[in-house]
Order: sequence, then C-alpha cells, then structure tokens
Amino acid sequence: MKGLDIHDRPKKLRGSSHSRNPQSSVFIPIRFLNTTSVDPSMASDYSGTPVTLDTINPKVLNCEYAVRGEIVTLAQNLQQELKENPGSRTFDEILYCNIGNPQSLGQQPITFFREVLALCDHPAILDRAETQGLFSADSIERAFQILDQIPGRATGAYSHSQGIKGLRDTIASGIEARDGYPADSNDIFLTDGASPAVHMMMQLLIRSEKDGILCPIPQYPLYSASITLHGGTLVPYYLDEATGWGLEISELKNQLEAAKSKGISVRALAVINPGNPTGQVLSESNQREIVEFCKKEKLVLLADEVYQENIYVPDKQFHSFKKVSRTMGYGEKDISIVSFQSVSKGYYGECGKRGGYMEITGFSPEVREQIYKMASVNLCSNISGQILASLVMSPPKVGDESYESYFAEKDAILSSLARRAKTLEAALNSLEGVTCNRAEGAMYLFPRIELPKKAIEAAKAANTAPDGFYASRLLDATGIVVVPGSGFRQVPGTWHFRCTILPQEDRIPAIVTRLTEFHKGFMDEFRD
Amino acid sequence: MKGLDIHDRPKKLRGSSHSRNPQSSVFIPIRFLNTTSVDPSMASDYSGTPVTLDTINPKVLNCEYAVRGEIVTLAQNLQQELKENPGSRTFDEILYCNIGNPQSLGQQPITFFREVLALCDHPAILDRAETQGLFSADSIERAFQILDQIPGRATGAYSHSQGIKGLRDTIASGIEARDGYPADSNDIFLTDGASPAVHMMMQLLIRSEKDGILCPIPQYPLYSASITLHGGTLVPYYLDEATGWGLEISELKNQLEAAKSKGISVRALAVINPGNPTGQVLSESNQREIVEFCKKEKLVLLADEVYQENIYVPDKQFHSFKKVSRTMGYGEKDISIVSFQSVSKGYYGECGKRGGYMEITGFSPEVREQIYKMASVNLCSNISGQILASLVMSPPKVGDESYESYFAEKDAILSSLARRAKTLEAALNSLEGVTCNRAEGAMYLFPRIELPKKAIEAAKAANTAPDGFYASRLLDATGIVVVPGSGFRQVPGTWHFRCTILPQEDRIPAIVTRLTEFHKGFMDEFRD
Repeated sequence: MKGLDIHDRPKKLRGSSHSRNPQSSVFIPIRFLNTTSVDPSMASDYSGTPVTLDTINPKVLNCEYAVRGEIVTLAQNLQQELKENPGSRTFDEILYCNIGNPQSLGQQPITFFREVLALCDHPAILDRAETQGLFSADSIERAFQILDQIPGRATGAYSHSQGIKGLRDTIASGIEARDGYPADSNDIFLTDGASPAVHMMMQLLIRSEKDGILCPIPQYPLYSASITLHGGTLVPYYLDEATGWGLEISELKNQLEAAKSKGISVRALAVINPGNPTGQVLSESNQREIVEFCKKEKLVLLADEVYQENIYVPDKQFHSFKKVSRTMGYGEKDISIVSFQSVSKGYYGECGKRGGYMEITGFSPEVREQIYKMASVNLCSNISGQILASLVMSPPKVGDESYESYFAEKDAILSSLARRAKTLEAALNSLEGVTCNRAEGAMYLFPRIELPKKAIEAAKAANTAPDGFYASRLLDATGIVVVPGSGFRQVPGTWHFRCTILPQEDRIPAIVTRLTEFHKGFMDEFRD
Repeated sequence: MKGLDIHDRPKKLRGSSHSRNPQSSVFIPIRFLNTTSVDPSMASDYSGTPVTLDTINPKVLNCEYAVRGEIVTLAQNLQQELKENPGSRTFDEILYCNIGNPQSLGQQPITFFREVLALCDHPAILDRAETQGLFSADSIERAFQILDQIPGRATGAYSHSQGIKGLRDTIASGIEARDGYPADSNDIFLTDGASPAVHMMMQLLIRSEKDGILCPIPQYPLYSASITLHGGTLVPYYLDEATGWGLEISELKNQLEAAKSKGISVRALAVINPGNPTGQVLSESNQREIVEFCKKEKLVLLADEVYQENIYVPDKQFHSFKKVSRTMGYGEKDISIVSFQSVSKGYYGECGKRGGYMEITGFSPEVREQIYKMASVNLCSNISGQILASLVMSPPKVGDESYESYFAEKDAILSSLARRAKTLEAALNSLEGVTCNRAEGAMYLFPRIELPKKAIEAAKAANTAPDGFYASRLLDATGIVVVPGSGFRQVPGTWHFRCTILPQEDRIPAIVTRLTEFHKGFMDEFRD
C-alpha cells in the first residue's frame, strides 16, 4: 500500500469538515467529470467533430453508475492535490471505501491461486528443477491438470464461447459439492466477471421500455445502469430497513401489479444475496417464497450470488437459489434461474482478473442457442479469469500440500472481515442520528443518516443530493470515499451511504476516529 | 497439438467429397445449433418456463455471427464423432481455419511476454534466487516496473476504468514511436480485446435503426452483429475484388447518398486495415482520401487496426489513420478517429488473454465523459490483458537480454506466415474456377469460387447458401473448417470462403493436397 498509515498519525486527525482549500471545493454540481483535465469552456472548439451530447444514444446519456461516478472523480482530484501539495490536508491518503475492491486496500491474493495462474501463463517452466523450489507441489500438479483440459495446452487461444469445457466441468462439480444437486457444465457460461453476464441477460430479455426487471431498492447500480443501457424499465421493490432489509413477498406483488397496470411486462426478478449494498443474508424460507413467486408469475430469477462466500454471522448460511428450488421439487423445466458468480468477491477478491460465470437453468434449447450466440459475438472470456473461476470452485483439499496455508489465508481474511464489519457497524450506530443494520454478509455497511434540515438546505443550495453533500464533506475532511445512498436508490426522504468493510484491520480504529470526529463536526455545523 | 499430423498420412487422403456416414450429414438447414445435445423435440417441455424465442429481444434473434456459427457447431459434432469413432473418416482431426486463433493451431507465445505475465501474477517469487535461473533479467526488471505502475502493486484489484495509468502511458509512447506524432494516455481505453471496444462505440453512436454505420463488404461479422444488437443499420460499401479489394471513394459517396435518401443518418465509417476477411493493405494515398471523406461528411472514422503488425509484402506498409490525418494537418479537433488494437493478432496472437485498447481522438470532453461512464459500468478490463497490451506496444529493445530471442521468435512467426499466405494463395489460384487476391496482410485468404449451376441447385435443395454448401462439404470430406463468404456478405451472386493462413507450416502441403483433391472431386460431381 502506498501512503502513510493513518493509524500512526492520530495527532493530525481533525474533526472539522471545513475545506482548507476553497479552490478544491467538492460541491460543484457536475454529474460526471471528465477524466482528463480539459477546460469545459474548450468544448465548443470541437464544433468541427461529428459527435455531440445531442447526437449520442440517449440511453447512454441517461445511464448512471454512482459507484464510479462523481464522488470517485472528486477523490481522484483530491489524490492529485495531495500528490502535488503533500501536507495540504489533515490526511495523507485517500481511502477508497466506495467499491468492493479488496486488493486495492491491501488484501493479499491467495497464494495457491496465483501460483497456478503463473504456471499456466508460462508453462515452459513447469518441468524445470527451480520451479519445484518456487511453487507448491499441488500448484504444479493443478497447472498440469488444467493445461491438459485446454485443447493444445494453448492458454493463449480463444476458447469455446462458453469457456473451456474442462474448467466448466470443474465448476459444475464445485456447484454440485456446494448444493448437493447435479450441475451441468453445459449450463455454465464463463464471463469476464459477473457484470458482462448481467448485461447479457438484460440484452436477452429487454425488448423495449415496456419490459421491466424487478430490482431491489437499494440496489447495486449495475442493474439500473444495465437496464437503462438496454432500454428497459427498472421496477423497484423496496427492502424493509426496519426488519434488517427484509424482502417481503407482498411488496413484490404490489410492485408487480403496479407495473402491470402501467403496461409493463415484467420479465425477471433480480435478487442480490448476500445483499449489495445492504449486506443482509436471505433466510431459506424467504428464498422459498421468492422461488414460488417467480414460478407463479413466470419470472426469470436473476440470482446475484457473487457474495456467497462472504457471510459473517453464525446464524446465517448461504443457499443458492437453484438448490432451494430443487429442494422444493422444482426441476430444470419448472423454473428459469440464472446464478451469477465472480472471482472478484469471496475471500479471494480477485477483481482485476475479471473472472466469473453464470449458471443458466430452465431455458429451452432454442433460447440457450441465442444465449450461446450472444456469448460467441465476444468470442470468449479471458482464460486466466476462466482458470481462476475453476480454482475458486475447487480450492485445495485436506491432504494437499497447499491446504493448510490456503486455509489459513482464507480464514484470516474472512474472520478479519467479520471483525471489521462488527467494529464499523458499532461505530456507525454510536453516531448521532445514524442507524446501521447488521452486515451479515457481502462487503458493505449501508447506514441511514438522519440529516438535519440545515444540512439538507445547504445541499440544496449546492445543487447536490443531501447524502451526496454528506459524502462530499466526508471525503473533503477525511479522505474517506463512500458512495451516497442516492446512487443505489432508497426510500424517498431517507439518506444513506455505502461504505465497504475492506480497509485493513489495523486502520479501522483510525477510520472510526476520523469518521466520528467528522460526523460530530458536521452535526455541530448543521444541527437544527 | 493434439491429433496426428496429416502430413504423415497422405495415403489416407481421398478426393471424394461423399460423406461415409450419412447420419452425420452436415447439410441440415439449422442456423444455430445448440451446444448441448438436447433433442429439439423436447423444447415444448419448457412450456412451464417464461422465456421463448417469441419473447426475447428480436435484435438478439436477428444477430448473426458466422465465424462461430453453424459451421463451427458442425465441426464440433464431427470432432466428437472422431473421438468416439476413431478411423471413421479419412482424416484424424479437425483443422480450424475459420478463425484467427493462432495458438489453437500450435503457434507458441512470445516467451518474454509470458515471463512478464507470470511474474506479475505471482510477484512473491520476484525476489527469490531460483527466479533468476528461470526468467530473463529483463522480464524480471519489466515486471518490477509494471508493478510499480499499479497502485499498491495490486494486480488483483479493479483498475481505473480506462486501465492502469502507467500502462496507458507506455502504450501512448508506443503509439508515438510508431506514428511520429504525440499520443495521450487519456485517449487510451484498455478493453478485453477489440470486440468490447467496438461494441462500446456502436452503443454510443446508435440511437435507432435510422442511424447507419458504413461497413466494408466483405466485413468482419463483429460489425454486422454489433450493429444489429444495438439496433442500427449497416450501410454497406463494396470493396472492389477486381482491384485487390480496392476501397473506392466514389462507392462510399454513392452508398452514403443512397442511405441518406432512405432517411438514414450515417454516423461513422468502419475501415478494417489490413483487411478482414480480405487481407488487403490500404495505400497511404487511399487512406488520405478516406480521412478527407470522413472530414467532409462529418463521420467518425472507426479504424480497425488490429492487424497492424501482420503485413507480408514488401510493397505495403501499415500507417495508422491517426498518423495519416496528422500528416494531412488535421489535429485533435478536426476529425474523430477511434483506433482499435488487440493482443489477439500480430505476431503475438494472444487471443485468450483478451487484451486490447482503443485510442479515441477528436471527441469533446463531454462526449468523452460519456465514453468513460460506459467503460466504468463494466469496471475495468482484465489486468493481465492490460499488461500484455502494454508489452506488445513496448517489446524488448536492442541491448535487452531478451531482445535476440524475442526478435527471433517474432521474425520466425511473421516470415512463416508470409510463406504460408503465399503457398495457400498459389494453391487456391490453381483450382478450377477459383481466384484469390494476394494476402498482403491480416491472417486470411478470401478466394472466390465460381460454383457450377448444379452445385447451386444442390445447395438450394439442401436449403443452404451455395458457399455454405461448399464449406460444409469441404469440412465433411477433409476436416478443414472455413467460413462461407455469406457470413461476411459479398457481391450478390458471387461466392467465397475465408480461410486462415494459420495452420503450422509443416502441415500446409497436406492441407493443399486435401483441399485440391476435395475441390477436384466436388467439381467432378457438380461440373455443368
């Protein structure tokens, strides 16, 4: 990690939320700032070029993606300021708590996974004596196994459009071991992370703005962005904050009926479990109700299960929607479920590798052909990501040389994440006007803030959403980047922010101090 | 490579184009076969599930992608047959000449590139003594340099949505060295291969079917597929086969006017140089005319330059469209050019790594923000692909430890490709009724076949395009997979196929023999 450890410098922390440098004010009402430092007044100079905001696809214009939106651009500008003017602020580095990007905050990759990837990247060293000294025996063995599954051992070749068959077999076995029900490698589509898989399903299902997708509110903005880009309608269903972000079937029914009455044909229900940004884990009984609802209403169940390994409380467990539907007696031809999984989350956190898969069940052969065709237009996903997806679904087993170190690494990460979630949750709940549900899973806390009227007025004056105002002030005063709740949508009139639990554990106390002092200062400034 | 070397078994080659196994007949008129072996009659059993061909996005249904279409599924079935019944055919393996996938046909990766990738995947070994014995000194040095460019050295973290800044700097320097004109890392968007970059531009530019994109005919079907998926109109311009696939400005003008008269607003001109599937290399004077045309007609120039390193004739050279426009005095604000580059092509052929970039110039800051936002919805491209894209734009230099071996590997691949192109071109031109333009660049030959009337009638009876009929028969008789010209579009009434020049050189004589004997048999069967 670059920058100084804020834990070492409590004396520099200050509670004031005032910017020391008015010129770097973060309250300018620009929705998406350019990544280059071009003076906006120069825009007219481009009158000789053909593309303008008036002539681009309006779906692109309307699309929003808050997780990497304005707040991140402000953070990048602030980072640049710190680089050019070290000491200009009360903090020395920007802490990106806006996005589930564990390794950017110092989480180390699982050694076994990286050993195998390196060997598959450069198989020429597999037979060399030095390699035995550098790599574990089982990583060498696994690399040989994987290479044998790749036609011609060509890790640099395009694969089958669904991904390498042998790797899909491994993933299907992993799913079987997890669920206790059969899985078929022909149902697996390997993708560059879960996002392209979600896009593919939206592209398949959405014909026009009359097609709707039921999405939780709050939701991960990939869903709203993807629905907008594909020209459909997001049909919201609200999670109940009062019951730990409960998913009520009555709410699903009401929203479905409301959509139907507006002429919207609802095609699918998206469920994120464990929840993002909300961190709840669904109970099995709730999942059964959801399956029943999809079955009855003939909806595709889009099951975002990328946080399946991220569960931090003993009273909750992950169950895949496919498993739940099978335990209910529903088979392949009874219900359509797409399960999304990613190498970016879990204890592995390999976001940069862009690996993932979707398991599609309950689609007719002719519809599957169309999904296959869509996959084939982009040829295939990256092979390292494919290999990694197979590894996370079949990690070392008891008796393997790497098992003990693998398990120790995994356990250290997951138990630390659980502790961090608890500490941050308690800290947030101790703040004036802040309430925060339990982070049962995933990588986020989504606290609610009761903002004083004066703060809401100040935000209005700055032409910013109140939670955006709060997040901007927090960033400006502490260097901590969180995403305003409005980026995920929320019950109108309520305000939240999403904060990851990912900063390294030794930094958590300083973050709590910074956050607490900032919040106190903010409330002192704006309290009604 | 798996399978037996066909070169060793000329005695088994036969000229007959008759299938020995009628049950494996390849002439069934199915456009896209399922990858799973589900009996189509079972489809009705899915009546309990919500998604049918009638209710999916019709843009998906209308999209075609021949390079991985029917012919590949037929080949996969045949491969399965060979596996289950070895010796059932006159050949022992399927030769995939349908797609530019060099490593699938035995091309070896460039050692230096793979060394650096492996070290970046597992940086823990960088400081180990054994590593010195396994890796070249400059690959170790380069890995350190690259890791220093990645915030926190985290190769497993999401990067900036455009890609890691330091890698983009390297790429910009590589472009500057290539072109002799400045390049800006803020103009670079790293992507998972060139395909997602092309999709991104289509998504930006296409608002409805009234928006058109000028595309060469024949064209690489990514363009037609992407335009269909985004709901636009492909405005064709025909390359002139008689003048070596010449690109005539008068043809561009005529087609532009014709489109305008139908109410189509033409947004962009796609040019593939070197050509795919046609293999021609544009002259600089022709490129200047094209730039002038785009400037005058206010079209975005979509420059597919992924084959920039694949040039096989001494009288042709690659010039980027950006360079050509700069030599004409056009600057950043005069013309909009998007240059696509990929790690999949060139002498590296790293298709499975899914790396590439687009360099966008001549877009206003507010339009660039929108492109940035689109990139951010998918978070970032895979980091190994990003690293590789930087490596191909800055390979070892004279004096580096790896330089000599790197250069030898590169030169061996490119000079062998040139010889293969020449041999295959000559062989094709020697066939009755076949004419084939020179493969000046890229990885393909696109011969024209004068099909006898009887063959056209037989194709009609089999409900197949005549060139699809020819390609199916070729596959069935020889195991050689080529793509029918109709997959790329062609002048109506003419018939072609695309064949890569990628099989390893020692196999070329046997391929020529197989192809020649098949063609003779085919003509004997159908000659008018």
